[in-house]
Amino acid sequence: MLARVVTSKHLPHCLLSGALLAGFAAFGQQQAVPAPLVSPEVHPDRSVTFRLRAPGAQEVKLNLEGSQAVDMKKDDQGVWSFTTPPLEPDLYGYGFSEDGVPRLDPNNSNFKPNLLNPQNVFQVAGSSALPWEVQDVPHGVIHHHFYHSEIVGDQRDYYVYTPPGYDANPGSRTLYPTLYLLHGYSDDASGWSAVGKAHLILDNLIAQGKAKPMLIVMTLGYGAPAIVARNTAGFRDNDLRQRNLDKFRESLLSEIIPMIQSQYRVSKQRVDRAIAGLSMGGAETLYTGLNHPETFAWIGAFSSGGLTEDFAKQFPAVDSRVNSQLKLLWIACGKDDRLIDWNRHMIGWLKTQGVNAVPVETPGTHTWMVWRRNLADFSAQLFR
Amino acid sequence: MLARVVTSKHLPHCLLSGALLAGFAAFGQQQAVPAPLVSPEVHPDRSVTFRLRAPGAQEVKLNLEGSQAVDMKKDDQGVWSFTTPPLEPDLYGYGFSEDGVPRLDPNNSNFKPNLLNPQNVFQVAGSSALPWEVQDVPHGVIHHHFYHSEIVGDQRDYYVYTPPGYDANPGSRTLYPTLYLLHGYSDDASGWSAVGKAHLILDNLIAQGKAKPMLIVMTLGYGAPAIVARNTAGFRDNDLRQRNLDKFRESLLSEIIPMIQSQYRVSKQRVDRAIAGLSMGGAETLYTGLNHPETFAWIGAFSSGGLTEDFAKQFPAVDSRVNSQLKLLWIACGKDDRLIDWNRHMIGWLKTQGVNAVPVETPGTHTWMVWRRNLADFSAQLFR
Repeated sequence: MLARVVTSKHLPHCLLSGALLAGFAAFGQQQAVPAPLVSPEVHPDRSVTFRLRAPGAQEVKLNLEGSQAVDMKKDDQGVWSFTTPPLEPDLYGYGFSEDGVPRLDPNNSNFKPNLLNPQNVFQVAGSSALPWEVQDVPHGVIHHHFYHSEIVGDQRDYYVYTPPGYDANPGSRTLYPTLYLLHGYSDDASGWSAVGKAHLILDNLIAQGKAKPMLIVMTLGYGAPAIVARNTAGFRDNDLRQRNLDKFRESLLSEIIPMIQSQYRVSKQRVDRAIAGLSMGGAETLYTGLNHPETFAWIGAFSSGGLTEDFAKQFPAVDSRVNSQLKLLWIACGKDDRLIDWNRHMIGWLKTQGVNAVPVETPGTHTWMVWRRNLADFSAQLFR
Repeated sequence: MLARVVTSKHLPHCLLSGALLAGFAAFGQQQAVPAPLVSPEVHPDRSVTFRLRAPGAQEVKLNLEGSQAVDMKKDDQGVWSFTTPPLEPDLYGYGFSEDGVPRLDPNNSNFKPNLLNPQNVFQVAGSSALPWEVQDVPHGVIHHHFYHSEIVGDQRDYYVYTPPGYDANPGSRTLYPTLYLLHGYSDDASGWSAVGKAHLILDNLIAQGKAKPMLIVMTLGYGAPAIVARNTAGFRDNDLRQRNLDKFRESLLSEIIPMIQSQYRVSKQRVDRAIAGLSMGGAETLYTGLNHPETFAWIGAFSSGGLTEDFAKQFPAVDSRVNSQLKLLWIACGKDDRLIDWNRHMIGWLKTQGVNAVPVETPGTHTWMVWRRNLADFSAQLFR
């Protein structure tokens, strides 16, 4: 038996008007609200159509992750649209620019968080699941922690991924290895899970036997939070960038790692500790990891940027002695990323010091499509 | 010693252009990008100015949570603005409507997630901290779980708050009480933490000795996910709404609760189990809680909506016998919420059945400002 039919006087109009009051304030005046559009629309051939109703705009551009901005075209209903060529299966970020002002897609409520440049996200599915798709395998857990940093002087957060079957029992003999995984400039601590899908990548690799069960600690990468105030000017301030590096390193070594080691069943051996990061987080990874081989035995730098080319000053004690300490020094960058030069120079300098790095040049620019693949490739090599 | 000055050839221009490529594609052509605006701007008297650059728009409205939509005014630069009267200290959701199409604020990257109606969020600070502000007190942890629901037939998630000092040791004698806390229509499982700040409310109340340490389980409230497909039509389908209620209840009782009881150190006594929810989640709370007093001893319904007024059919076995089973039946609604009528009728029907409910009518409409206060008031009474 089903619920009796109710009149619109009681339900659901009254509920909807209430529940969505703030956003659907015009709900009672439907004639004024244009119909929603389908955007993005992924076609069977994996081409994608984007649509935005903006009748008064002079110019609307599509900013698709990994592509140059392109002009959209307006129809006689004031709807701007653009259809891409077939895209590779992947997760893509995107946004619009309306007369030069960023605009999110009102027909897509799937977002990637970002402190400066939030975008929408959509997926182009392939014939088989990608390593960052939800699959029917055992899942780990993401733990969101909050604490006061004495070193930075604020309330902040970090996330910890524990693998499927993680055993928190103090009587257990299992001590897990740990990957410290750092986000890029303008991301927050949620970046590697919300956008990078680190938890799904590890769930899937572990289920396939391709990665060891490990913890992943995803911290907030701002040692000097002023660096990410409302615009990017902070990043152009050399002093601030250096303080950001130094304070981040200090907080990681003296606050985060001790907390993790008291909160979780993790090994305290250096061979069971890895550090990796993307872009600014790649710079923090190299700066922290290479200068502290007594703490980290595995280093992964993805599309690193934010250090100068004065390598000798930034890595004063780094020479061939680290070869016996490091299990892996993996330095990756997309071939079409403008940071490829810095990364090549860094690898070249390491070579002059007698340090063995694994240079990795992948297709792609400065995108999460590159970094998700970097993480899948790097994490599969760890703790073996 | 500071890092040497680097030229813009190397840093940071190359990094920024790369790091923010997708969204800042016009970075190299700065003349085309209008300057960012300050929006929202909270003034010392707690009035707030909202600004949006939209030179081509015919009409821009501000939708501020808890208020009617208002028209913004355009200046000769194409910037639309509106300044509110002084606002009460609180967290507010808001968005713009540009020629009838929802638009988020491009100058505010603080969002509240929502499957149908994402909005921006801002805070008006008061002279003393509100119960949902981050304070320098011990913090609990939010755990994000992923699983396959056999009952609903999909991969889904839930969040668990553990209080400060939570002791997961199987040897510990502490067994915590648990509040199952349900979101509203169009929210997802993150709603009560990301927007409702349930973790901060409990951190603060526990620190003040006003609430007992407890776990809070925040599930995904869609027993029939079709109800929340791209628009609100699903909610107007009576059959679908009933299936949503039934499948949600089934999954809570037979999947979620057993998982929680195996994953956490929680009591299995009914007197140590509470259920509460807002709007659709309030309806799910009453439907599940009142029909299962053998499972829940504490019930909190906030601004409930989504049940019919055929109370006898929805609560066939509910009569005065539940008074001895329930420790608290707390039914709250804002006086200016259109759902106040249904809630009054529900309380009236309970009275005819001899059931003792605590009726609570607060100021406010159908907003998170009401529900955060509801949670603070309700949770302080639990497990005593």
